[in-house]
Amino acid sequence: MGEQWKLDPDRYFDPEPSQRRVARELYDSVARLPIVSPHGHVAPQLFADADAVFGSPADLFIIPDHYVFRMLYSQGISLDDLGVPRAGVGQGSIDSDYDAEERGRQIWQVFADNFYLFRGTPSGAWLQHELIEVFGVHEKLDGDTAQAIYDHIEARLAEPGFRPRQLFESFNIEVLCTTDAASDSLEHHRAIQNSGWSGKVLPTFRPDAVVNLETVGWRGHLDALARAVGYEIGSYERLVQALEERRAFFKQMGAHATDHAALTAYTANLTAPEAEAIFARALRGEASAEDARRFTGHMLMEMARMSIEDGLVMQLHVGSFRNHNTTLFAAYGADKGADIPIAAEFTRNLHALLNAYGNDPRLTLILFNLDEDTYARELAPLAGHYPAIKIGPPWWFHDSVNGMRRYFDRVMETAGIYNTAGFNDDTRAFPSIPARHDVWRRAAANWVAGLIVRGLVDRQDGNDMVYALAYGLAKQAYRLDEA
Amino acid sequence: MGEQWKLDPDRYFDPEPSQRRVARELYDSVARLPIVSPHGHVAPQLFADADAVFGSPADLFIIPDHYVFRMLYSQGISLDDLGVPRAGVGQGSIDSDYDAEERGRQIWQVFADNFYLFRGTPSGAWLQHELIEVFGVHEKLDGDTAQAIYDHIEARLAEPGFRPRQLFESFNIEVLCTTDAASDSLEHHRAIQNSGWSGKVLPTFRPDAVVNLETVGWRGHLDALARAVGYEIGSYERLVQALEERRAFFKQMGAHATDHAALTAYTANLTAPEAEAIFARALRGEASAEDARRFTGHMLMEMARMSIEDGLVMQLHVGSFRNHNTTLFAAYGADKGADIPIAAEFTRNLHALLNAYGNDPRLTLILFNLDEDTYARELAPLAGHYPAIKIGPPWWFHDSVNGMRRYFDRVMETAGIYNTAGFNDDTRAFPSIPARHDVWRRAAANWVAGLIVRGLVDRQDGNDMVYALAYGLAKQAYRLDEA
Amino acid sequence: MGEQWKLDPDRYFDPEPSQRRVARELYDSVARLPIVSPHGHVAPQLFADADAVFGSPADLFIIPDHYVFRMLYSQGISLDDLGVPRAGVGQGSIDSDYDAEERGRQIWQVFADNFYLFRGTPSGAWLQHELIEVFGVHEKLDGDTAQAIYDHIEARLAEPGFRPRQLFESFNIEVLCTTDAASDSLEHHRAIQNSGWSGKVLPTFRPDAVVNLETVGWRGHLDALARAVGYEIGSYERLVQALEERRAFFKQMGAHATDHAALTAYTANLTAPEAEAIFARALRGEASAEDARRFTGHMLMEMARMSIEDGLVMQLHVGSFRNHNTTLFAAYGADKGADIPIAAEFTRNLHALLNAYGNDPRLTLILFNLDEDTYARELAPLAGHYPAIKIGPPWWFHDSVNGMRRYFDRVMETAGIYNTAGFNDDTRAFPSIPARHDVWRRAAANWVAGLIVRGLVDRQDGNDMVYALAYGLAKQAYRLDEA
Repeated sequence: MGEQWKLDPDRYFDPEPSQRRVARELYDSVARLPIVSPHGHVAPQLFADADAVFGSPADLFIIPDHYVFRMLYSQGISLDDLGVPRAGVGQGSIDSDYDAEERGRQIWQVFADNFYLFRGTPSGAWLQHELIEVFGVHEKLDGDTAQAIYDHIEARLAEPGFRPRQLFESFNIEVLCTTDAASDSLEHHRAIQNSGWSGKVLPTFRPDAVVNLETVGWRGHLDALARAVGYEIGSYERLVQALEERRAFFKQMGAHATDHAALTAYTANLTAPEAEAIFARALRGEASAEDARRFTGHMLMEMARMSIEDGLVMQLHVGSFRNHNTTLFAAYGADKGADIPIAAEFTRNLHALLNAYGNDPRLTLILFNLDEDTYARELAPLAGHYPAIKIGPPWWFHDSVNGMRRYFDRVMETAGIYNTAGFNDDTRAFPSIPARHDVWRRAAANWVAGLIVRGLVDRQDGNDMVYALAYGLAKQAYRLDEA
Repeated sequence: MGEQWKLDPDRYFDPEPSQRRVARELYDSVARLPIVSPHGHVAPQLFADADAVFGSPADLFIIPDHYVFRMLYSQGISLDDLGVPRAGVGQGSIDSDYDAEERGRQIWQVFADNFYLFRGTPSGAWLQHELIEVFGVHEKLDGDTAQAIYDHIEARLAEPGFRPRQLFESFNIEVLCTTDAASDSLEHHRAIQNSGWSGKVLPTFRPDAVVNLETVGWRGHLDALARAVGYEIGSYERLVQALEERRAFFKQMGAHATDHAALTAYTANLTAPEAEAIFARALRGEASAEDARRFTGHMLMEMARMSIEDGLVMQLHVGSFRNHNTTLFAAYGADKGADIPIAAEFTRNLHALLNAYGNDPRLTLILFNLDEDTYARELAPLAGHYPAIKIGPPWWFHDSVNGMRRYFDRVMETAGIYNTAGFNDDTRAFPSIPARHDVWRRAAANWVAGLIVRGLVDRQDGNDMVYALAYGLAKQAYRLDEA
Repeated sequence: MGEQWKLDPDRYFDPEPSQRRVARELYDSVARLPIVSPHGHVAPQLFADADAVFGSPADLFIIPDHYVFRMLYSQGISLDDLGVPRAGVGQGSIDSDYDAEERGRQIWQVFADNFYLFRGTPSGAWLQHELIEVFGVHEKLDGDTAQAIYDHIEARLAEPGFRPRQLFESFNIEVLCTTDAASDSLEHHRAIQNSGWSGKVLPTFRPDAVVNLETVGWRGHLDALARAVGYEIGSYERLVQALEERRAFFKQMGAHATDHAALTAYTANLTAPEAEAIFARALRGEASAEDARRFTGHMLMEMARMSIEDGLVMQLHVGSFRNHNTTLFAAYGADKGADIPIAAEFTRNLHALLNAYGNDPRLTLILFNLDEDTYARELAPLAGHYPAIKIGPPWWFHDSVNGMRRYFDRVMETAGIYNTAGFNDDTRAFPSIPARHDVWRRAAANWVAGLIVRGLVDRQDGNDMVYALAYGLAKQAYRLDEA
């Protein structure tokens, strides 16, 4: 076991002493600012009940986190051995507490035996931060220390201070936005609001499941939306009406934003008859892939129009080929680490939307992307011109020390920092939130320090920039500084 | 206002002391070399009249510079508030000197209030260099200092030393190449030559407006070309004849190069009947987009052929989707900051041209590009093989400290520096020329210093490389060292 | 001539002292490990005869090395002046030893006069390493020193210690894999095995010439394969049989891997009748480009299937547009420096293959690529999920200090180092092997040192990582640690 496991207080900073010194000073000026988390996938029910608890260490760190189990899977470890439930099965096959405990420990042992795989990865950095900073682990995780560390975490999780609401507060989260289906009742958000707890947890409107005609189970999602609005959605016109009503409901429930995912950024208006015809084919189960593509491209235009009308910030995530591994998808379902990026294109694809709405300062369209080649080539030139566009932070596989460095390097010269949206953690792993924001704040401080020691900006400007990157820009972009 | 505003003498150099020291020494060895500016968009009339003056500070720094106003526009500031004239209107709406003065001061105030947007951008760096080094401003520009700085610049511009010809000389410009339409009379170039002034200002032949059938107002440009040659251009054959004659005229007037812009690098020969048929359709206003694409691809082949015959260096700029913002284009016209890059491809697109002419050392084809992904993948491998190809410097959005670093990083290992064309400033903002060359010389010195301290080249080689990058390569590539 | 020509002992390391110190320590820990060379193009006959010798310095350094002569050609030097033989001619035009000596010296002089072109290039770094470390040259190569250095190298090559087998041993090569046609008799490998020499030289099965229907001379290659198996290959079924038999023969002769090159990574199964129909068209000389594309995509699937069955590791190299310069190809043949990369795509192209075989841990598919944009976007996410995939080292134009830095930067965060395949030198220039592995080991040490001084991994993990990168991963990925 040897020496104590700890985090380097100067981690992620350039080793050159003059830059490191400035980076540390800049970081110190923002390290303890509240966390603004305007986009992510934490389950709101965690906060609906004051007494909610997390499960076992395996439930918390491994089973739900596709960042973690995808790496283990890539080395030949089966998802079954990691406790990932089979589609339609759930974890119900474990029939006693003792078995569950045994099972959690076995999963944890596999994880610890293979923890070396995460060397130099962002998952490795976040996990280390969580274990050391959040849970107070001070032995390096490996096969030998696995069970002792499991004991330690299990004990912590039983303490009152490790309940979700208490961690929310000790993490100093100012606001946490969840992501919710268009048909969602937002019952957990309502419960939070009614509970008297001061934590600010806001919903985000995500209509993908009804807007993307190729969604597995689309009809079921549409029916859920119909139930939510209380009338049948038998036409495109009714769909638009339903979406407008649900947006109003989400807004009333505190939402500041909508979220949209698409394979590409393609946008183009359909005529009303075209839209009705495609929707009718979809209802009959006859929509083609081309229908779906055109309908999604049209609905993105509609969403921009609605955003101008209701003021909800529009987020667009493009470029993920979902469920690439069809065998795994059949066995385990979605979000199993098998979403793989494809090349992206914005200049031509967003032409229709931007020509319709891009000059309107009432629209804020935040673009997320998995193809870094578009940073300097398309996103920064677009954001450095159109009033409506902001560039979202480095997303998913690029939410990392190197990914951030490349993002600052390629985006900022042309877009300027004020056309970006600060940071998102985009996580479903609640305890990783401080780790993720810490990486961003350190990476931002180090980047600005690099500008200062290279004479590109002066210290005064640098101070302002780091504050904006760490805190201000996210609030502005998501209009969280308003009302 | 606190401490004096000044430039860091070691700006853009790596902070690590050993590299910084070498970088500074290398930079010092080339910092005062004459400026060779082989490609740009400065108006030749500035130098035609010995008494020409620049306008107001707003006229000089803001109104004509789409790099500057695009950033302000992206944050919701209207182009009207920045003095950008509406298409077909001009600035004639200002009806007195007093109004013009007021208007200029208002524009300047908006600019200064928002100067923080340029933090960390190349425009910010150039503007700071111009203000401090060229105009002697020593207070940091912001909303508070705006009017005093306006006064200061206005006073400088009234001095004889701030006339265009005097700045040309104090900038130590050895040669400045302009960019001129195929139909241009080159009257300003003739006036310069006849004036007895020693400044070397050379024309460049740019036939895009007649060669690209989709140019807005193509027929008018063709008619202008017809007037220039003195005969009707009713056939493709006549067009070729006219272009050959105009090239000869440009060459006689001192031109060393031609310049061509295209959406893609597509090249392919048409047969003569095909070319005639497309041209005939164009004359009837019936050319299709595909006609235009094929005609442009064919004319690039023709231009390479003519370059082999007349020795003019051929420049090709590809990848800009012009006037992406159609609303803005309708209101304000072209060059308003709404040109957005697209992905580029050279390996297949240049196959026809390179197979016809790429092995001919009489051809120099300088390639410019907005898609950095092609640097290491296509441009460097092509330039490291074909005798005809040279790679132009980082263009437009990549003309920056980071853009240059990425260019050196990705181009030089495979192409070697001797297959590159040195630096272009490519600017229409005359007072920014020294700033832009200074960035390049510093970035080049820092890159070579990095090679030296990493043991990749020795100091003697490094000295030669920096001289070549700062001065020699541009002269060689554009054959400015000949005759 | 001045000071002695020598290599910087800290070359390629970051100049920042703390990182440099760690990099040097890590490098020292792996610098003398045996060389594992699992993929390359060294001719096995070099080792078949204990008395084999290299030719003249020009024969060794220039004439066969397209990395070297492409750069000289790009500056207008003819391939004839570099001794590159015309297609179908050979070097037989030289009719006496005296002429050969004269000719070698002339070629060397041209090379030395232009050696400055290689400043800052990987070829320059390798050549310098070979001259100084392998041949003991201590004067810098240029036009003045050319002939003295030629004398020196010629004398060395005449010494027993400079024969291929002796260099193999002094280079400390543990295993060297060659690349051999499917029809190859492997007579040289047999001769090596029968000679009693301890050097391990293994064949690799490369069936491209018969699998890619567009190969120039495809029919001749198919006939050679038929002769090798002893029956006519008149059907697709027979082709599959022949390939399976040849794989078994290669495996019995020590092969651990197969190698496949394709313009794209396209994969898709044909039905047996489709495959037969295309093959029949190919036999009649009537296969279309689309036939060839589909057949290649199908055969990649077949090769993966066979790999699962016979355990040979599968290598796939994609993205090179071969023989781009048709004039040069007609005059001099293939491999003349005119292969130019194109953009690559893996996510969709490999979908069929990965869905069929990607979850099978018996398959190891090592992917090589010339389009760095796919590193972070596609390759790392694929390798970080599918058990079958490993990412090969930076290939060809990216086998360089910068290319490696970009590879570590973009691949490792998402894939982790354990989903990569260590290093390949991929060279036909035998004396460059130590230089190439040295660059990799230094670059790897410097990268890991950067992780350590930035607090991303601790020193203990760093030590393990450098060992894996320098030695262990290559052995594991190619299963050279087995049997």
